[in-house]
Amino acid sequence: MAQNEISIATIQRLPIYLDYLKSMTGGAEYISATALASALGFGEVQVRKDLASVCSSGKPKIGYHVEELKAEIEEYLGYHKANNAIVIGAGRLGCALLGYEGFSRYGLNILAAFDIDVSKVGKMENGKPILSMEELAGFCRRENVQIGIITVPAVHAKQACEALLAAGILAIWNFAPIHLDVPESVIIKDENMACSLAVLSTKLAKKLGENAAT
Amino acid sequence: MAQNEISIATIQRLPIYLDYLKSMTGGAEYISATALASALGFGEVQVRKDLASVCSSGKPKIGYHVEELKAEIEEYLGYHKANNAIVIGAGRLGCALLGYEGFSRYGLNILAAFDIDVSKVGKMENGKPILSMEELAGFCRRENVQIGIITVPAVHAKQACEALLAAGILAIWNFAPIHLDVPESVIIKDENMACSLAVLSTKLAKKLGENAAT
Repeated sequence: MAQNEISIATIQRLPIYLDYLKSMTGGAEYISATALASALGFGEVQVRKDLASVCSSGKPKIGYHVEELKAEIEEYLGYHKANNAIVIGAGRLGCALLGYEGFSRYGLNILAAFDIDVSKVGKMENGKPILSMEELAGFCRRENVQIGIITVPAVHAKQACEALLAAGILAIWNFAPIHLDVPESVIIKDENMACSLAVLSTKLAKKLGENAAT
Repeated sequence: MAQNEISIATIQRLPIYLDYLKSMTGGAEYISATALASALGFGEVQVRKDLASVCSSGKPKIGYHVEELKAEIEEYLGYHKANNAIVIGAGRLGCALLGYEGFSRYGLNILAAFDIDVSKVGKMENGKPILSMEELAGFCRRENVQIGIITVPAVHAKQACEALLAAGILAIWNFAPIHLDVPESVIIKDENMACSLAVLSTKLAKKLGENAAT
């Protein structure tokens, strides 16, 4: 039930709590919401609310049991159940994702990359094969791949998306800066770096304006 | 005044509207909020609200003048004023960002990468130099660099951040999966891919649970 009620914003903060808890040294058994809020620059009310949605072990005046809290967040985020994934587009970004060992910590298991460029097909990248698009559907069915990651340029993204849908993929992580239409039954998460950049640029423009005015 | 009131969520959606407007073919002079909402999968009320914060040219029953709306969004996002940036960490992700030509469309001008690995220093990547960390502060002052992009592994991120602060950087775009402490006067935007992945994984886990139950 809690799962249905947790907001996207809370889900996105959960890995940040988890990273912090894992980085704690000194062996403290408990941590308070106040300490977590202060370390991460979040509001205290927000921290309490976020953690209440995944964890029932917080105690007044004592705080959260660190090991229990870590286990509860990992359980919620499904880090113990690995999801198989593949990348479409063996360019720089695709290979960066393929080579990023940290993903296994998050339950993401990237098995291979696929590319339309025949000069890349058949090569290995970080011990993982680059395969042709013709092999996609068979590979996904055989290896039980649930997640497709799109790292092709915007002009090829629609085609990559259609190939993933035809291969029976359930979720798409889209790094191409373009809107992709998918059936309602497919989960899509856009990773549009232009959107993050927009936040940075507008804040910077405002700051430069303020600096110039003083 | 409007600038102060716009939410982060709205700012993050502005590049999505802009991309869509630029991708429009057929030469329509006007577009309605209804058409935009439907094309992008957003709510109509949200579209009206988002666009009202940057644009005054929407007309009842006619919609927005496409060219004017594009110009107003670009103006708001500061795409016409280029920000100089550098990357710390010339690994796969750093080089992917260095080679991504799309950033210039967003007013981001990446000039160089810096790395502690002497075997990389002195090389060129997509026509841009990889320099040593010792050259950072001088380069940033000389070239008027405002934005520092951190793409080093988490263990080196704190050190990279300190070097950027010492070099007088105003804004940091952090791709390392770690929380960085910066003075209030410095803008920081975390690009934590684990946070996006968490959204995808939890939705997928829920979906797989539903599928198993039926």
